[in-house]
Amino acid sequence: MKSKPCRESFVVKTSHVLPPDTNNFGTLFGGKLMAHIDDVAAIAAVRHARNPVVTASTDSVDFLAPVNLGHSICLEAFVTWTRQTSMEVFVKAVTEDLLSGERKVCTTAFLTFVAVDDDGRLVEVPEVYPETEMEKKLHANAPIRADQRKERRKQS
Amino acid sequence: MKSKPCRESFVVKTSHVLPPDTNNFGTLFGGKLMAHIDDVAAIAAVRHARNPVVTASTDSVDFLAPVNLGHSICLEAFVTWTRQTSMEVFVKAVTEDLLSGERKVCTTAFLTFVAVDDDGRLVEVPEVYPETEMEKKLHANAPIRADQRKERRKQS
Amino acid sequence: MKSKPCRESFVVKTSHVLPPDTNNFGTLFGGKLMAHIDDVAAIAAVRHARNPVVTASTDSVDFLAPVNLGHSICLEAFVTWTRQTSMEVFVKAVTEDLLSGERKVCTTAFLTFVAVDDDGRLVEVPEVYPETEMEKKLHANAPIRADQRKERRKQS
Amino acid sequence: MKSKPCRESFVVKTSHVLPPDTNNFGTLFGGKLMAHIDDVAAIAAVRHARNPVVTASTDSVDFLAPVNLGHSICLEAFVTWTRQTSMEVFVKAVTEDLLSGERKVCTTAFLTFVAVDDDGRLVEVPEVYPETEMEKKLHANAPIRADQRKERRKQS
Amino acid sequence: MKSKPCRESFVVKTSHVLPPDTNNFGTLFGGKLMAHIDDVAAIAAVRHARNPVVTASTDSVDFLAPVNLGHSICLEAFVTWTRQTSMEVFVKAVTEDLLSGERKVCTTAFLTFVAVDDDGRLVEVPEVYPETEMEKKLHANAPIRADQRKERRKQS
Amino acid sequence: MKSKPCRESFVVKTSHVLPPDTNNFGTLFGGKLMAHIDDVAAIAAVRHARNPVVTASTDSVDFLAPVNLGHSICLEAFVTWTRQTSMEVFVKAVTEDLLSGERKVCTTAFLTFVAVDDDGRLVEVPEVYPETEMEKKLHANAPIRADQRKERRKQS
Ligand SMILES: CC(C)(COP(=O)(O)OP(=O)(O)OC[C@H]1O[C@@H](n2cnc3c(N)ncnc32)[C@H](O)[C@@H]1OP(=O)(O)O)[C@@H](O)C(=O)NCCC(=O)NCCS
Ligand SMILES: CC(C)(COP(=O)(O)OP(=O)(O)OC[C@H]1O[C@@H](n2cnc3c(N)ncnc32)[C@H](O)[C@@H]1OP(=O)(O)O)[C@@H](O)C(=O)NCCC(=O)NCCS
Ligand SMILES: CC(C)(COP(=O)(O)OP(=O)(O)OC[C@H]1O[C@@H](n2cnc3c(N)ncnc32)[C@H](O)[C@@H]1OP(=O)(O)O)[C@@H](O)C(=O)NCCC(=O)NCCS
Ligand SMILES: CC(C)(COP(=O)(O)OP(=O)(O)OC[C@H]1O[C@@H](n2cnc3c(N)ncnc32)[C@H](O)[C@@H]1OP(=O)(O)O)[C@@H](O)C(=O)NCCC(=O)NCCS
Repeated sequence: MKSKPCRESFVVKTSHVLPPDTNNFGTLFGGKLMAHIDDVAAIAAVRHARNPVVTASTDSVDFLAPVNLGHSICLEAFVTWTRQTSMEVFVKAVTEDLLSGERKVCTTAFLTFVAVDDDGRLVEVPEVYPETEMEKKLHANAPIRADQRKERRKQS
Repeated sequence: MKSKPCRESFVVKTSHVLPPDTNNFGTLFGGKLMAHIDDVAAIAAVRHARNPVVTASTDSVDFLAPVNLGHSICLEAFVTWTRQTSMEVFVKAVTEDLLSGERKVCTTAFLTFVAVDDDGRLVEVPEVYPETEMEKKLHANAPIRADQRKERRKQS
Repeated sequence: MKSKPCRESFVVKTSHVLPPDTNNFGTLFGGKLMAHIDDVAAIAAVRHARNPVVTASTDSVDFLAPVNLGHSICLEAFVTWTRQTSMEVFVKAVTEDLLSGERKVCTTAFLTFVAVDDDGRLVEVPEVYPETEMEKKLHANAPIRADQRKERRKQS
Repeated sequence: MKSKPCRESFVVKTSHVLPPDTNNFGTLFGGKLMAHIDDVAAIAAVRHARNPVVTASTDSVDFLAPVNLGHSICLEAFVTWTRQTSMEVFVKAVTEDLLSGERKVCTTAFLTFVAVDDDGRLVEVPEVYPETEMEKKLHANAPIRADQRKERRKQS
Repeated sequence: MKSKPCRESFVVKTSHVLPPDTNNFGTLFGGKLMAHIDDVAAIAAVRHARNPVVTASTDSVDFLAPVNLGHSICLEAFVTWTRQTSMEVFVKAVTEDLLSGERKVCTTAFLTFVAVDDDGRLVEVPEVYPETEMEKKLHANAPIRADQRKERRKQS
Repeated sequence: MKSKPCRESFVVKTSHVLPPDTNNFGTLFGGKLMAHIDDVAAIAAVRHARNPVVTASTDSVDFLAPVNLGHSICLEAFVTWTRQTSMEVFVKAVTEDLLSGERKVCTTAFLTFVAVDDDGRLVEVPEVYPETEMEKKLHANAPIRADQRKERRKQS
């Protein structure tokens, strides 16, 4: 399988924050943001693998800024690193007050997806290579994060 | 008000096509695509105007290719032209078979948005200037389309 | 195939305007109205053809009046004209302030649907004949609109 | 307050049965049908009272025929009878196999709505008078059903 | 088939009341509560029968207290009684003002489900036996309610 | 403020897995499970604090088993530990094949919520005390997890 650049799996999703996504303060539920994150990350993973995938895990996520009703939320995702059947995907979520133009990073997240066939058997994925500074940094640190995940699974 | 480049209002939205969006063939309803188109175009219009907007009209839309369940749909929108209180927004929708990578333009559309204040009164918007070839072409033809819309409203 | 009257495909859909359908002014998104329009028009087209259909196009749509949260919206649709495999459907959307009873036409629209079989192949549809004044007028002008659509597709 | 005919509150709602509304057999959930019934009945009640309403009760409902994915469901509702602050609404739900045209009554239901002001206080409603045979029959029997409801509430 | 205790089918569902579920007063639509009731009751019925089920009927339901936006609603359901292929399910809905902790019963309901196989043919279900006082009382009265339902169906 | 037992915030939510929540394999999206987890955890946190809350973070989550369309998913949540304004909530998600009765833990998760007033200012929360073995174990380890979160935020 031919190695592919990170940029080939790059996905952008901009959405309005609507009433059913918000709590009594008019701010986005954490779980809805997680659903957006998983959605965009899954598209990135399938684009890289050109194979169906399932979410194996999400690393810890800190919610840095509330996201308000009527604002937009823009999510960007790409595959940073792969092993045999698994891919790490990085997601950044930025909220924008559409009236003022002010933007804030609300969170960043790492998810791991695994490629599986129709019977749920694991499938190998192509390698990924970084091109930009950001991609290179995330690609370089990925094995450390993968080891931490393995360690974490052993303990639980 | 300072004129702004088209690129400042540029918005991208990539989504999965999910079961509730599809008919008995497993293809996207035309109306759901229209809802996506209006959503992304409205974000572009608010970004340009930095003011709330309402949809005044959509020009005719031809649906060129079906969009399948499980595929992704990527919409791009930006403001092409403005008059006093109205903005023309261009939207392109491209579907992607995520497993094969094959992409098809399913439609292009022009919508007009009008900036309004909290009491529904019309509000002036900044001008827009084009930079790329595509932007320049769409900007140049916009007055003709605006006149056709005016003509159309008179007749109905 | 036996010709059928317009009234056989006549469909009415009355709905509440709910919070997730509205923007920050508490008025309906244009795209949500388009989705309602496509939905009711598709039911009319299948009723006429007694065959699955896909949306081929929507003509231009002017949004004449805002639709408020809590009001109702009533859509009426019927097949006005057919050619071989395509049907023109007319839709009228009227909003009602349920507390005062005041009604306003918010838009009218023409959509074209095409009958297709399970493999996506085109299928012939029965003819339609008008009975009321309104039906007769829309039926008579339909060939002109069909030619304009053909012209429009050639140019784009 | 002037008495109004049943027909003034008459409401029709035709919808597609979509995947999220159906169970593993591809048939509509009973609860989704109840939600449609309440929705259309509430519009009828507000139209009659020209005042906000809340659902006080639904009488027993028998589901006579399953409603299939892809079929349409058509609900009709109107106010049959009123007392001081309460209104009885009759709803009939008919499903249609859009491909064959076959229709079946899937259920009929009686709901009671009460008119309330913004502070939740009860508000009087106009009387209603029947015109058609069907309306006359339902209007005539309504006091018996109202007494049965009162009896029922006492016992529970 | 071995008889099972009521408790084996016991199901609890706690949810937030969200904007799309509420009317202009910010209180839950009756139909949405009915949809919740049917959902939780269906899970109880399938758990008892270990077989797919469809809703045959709901007895009359009185809505005793409004349910406010932002409050939670907790539904409990279990099978009270069975005959050959049908099961009676009891549901209690309690609303909680999450800020004050105040709880109110908003309604109780009896639904009847029937077990069916993939071709829609009726399937026998195991018997159920009550253990608690509440279960015993509901189990004892169930045959009377079943007879009333039979009577009701004959009349309509 | 009086300390409260873990059991006072205990919340259960059982749901059907429906078509819009699933991917092309008919298994639940990871992000939808995250949304359920956040929803039930937030109810637990508000019940403990009797004050509005926002999600501050979720720890890493491993998805151990797929969740199938038509199965049920049961989430349980309670507050395990508090500091001044923050609460740790533990969530366990168990899936059940309703036809066979087979159950599997699909994931466990720790989330942190913070109590805030209407202006978004932090608010103190009551302490929590454990009663069962499980509660005691999770309560005892909580300070270690809290320190790890602090460490994690410093690094990022
Ligand atoms: C609509 C569609 C089937 C037409 O296919 P095609 O190969 O271009 O068909 P043809 O050119 O042979 O035309 C077939 C008929 O459709 C009509 N038609 C085609 N495109 C049309 C358009 N944009 N507007 C109106 N009518 C159109 C033709 O006039 C012809 O009508 P007739 O048989 O009554 O004379 C095809 O473009 C398609 O599948 N589009 C996507 C449909 C869809 O999925 N819609 C929802 C998108 S989200
Ligand atoms: C759009 C709307 C504000 C226009 O109000 P109006 O009183 O007709 O406004 P005017 O005729 O003074 O026109 C104002 C501007 O809008 C433009 N406009 C009005 N109707 C238009 C249409 N159908 N298509 C394109 N532009 C239109 C005019 O060209 C003018 O532009 P300019 O200021 O840049 O020269 C009004 O029709 C409305 O509120 N419509 C409903 C909007 C809505 O709720 N959309 C969603 C429906 S679900
Ligand atoms: C319906 C409600 C307003 C009745 O309030 P109440 O204080 O019991 O009212 P009263 O006993 O004075 O009765 C007022 C009227 O309602 C009628 N009514 C009350 N409960 C009823 C019931 N369960 N079924 C039918 N009618 C009922 C009475 O007959 C009376 O009618 P009338 O004025 O025409 O003679 C109250 O029970 C309520 O708020 N329920 C919740 C409504 C709701 O939110 N529904 C959706 C739930 S998700
Ligand atoms: C993810 C899943 C397929 C892993 O299966 P498994 O039998 O444990 O697989 P293995 O231990 O052989 O590991 C396979 C790969 O997945 C990786 N992996 C497994 N669990 C992981 C986790 N929790 N986090 C990150 N990576 C993980 C392994 O490192 C390995 O990667 P590699 O092939 O690149 O070296 C399985 O746990 C599963 O089906 N989970 C549910 C997925 C799902 O439905 N998600 C949505 C839940 S709502």
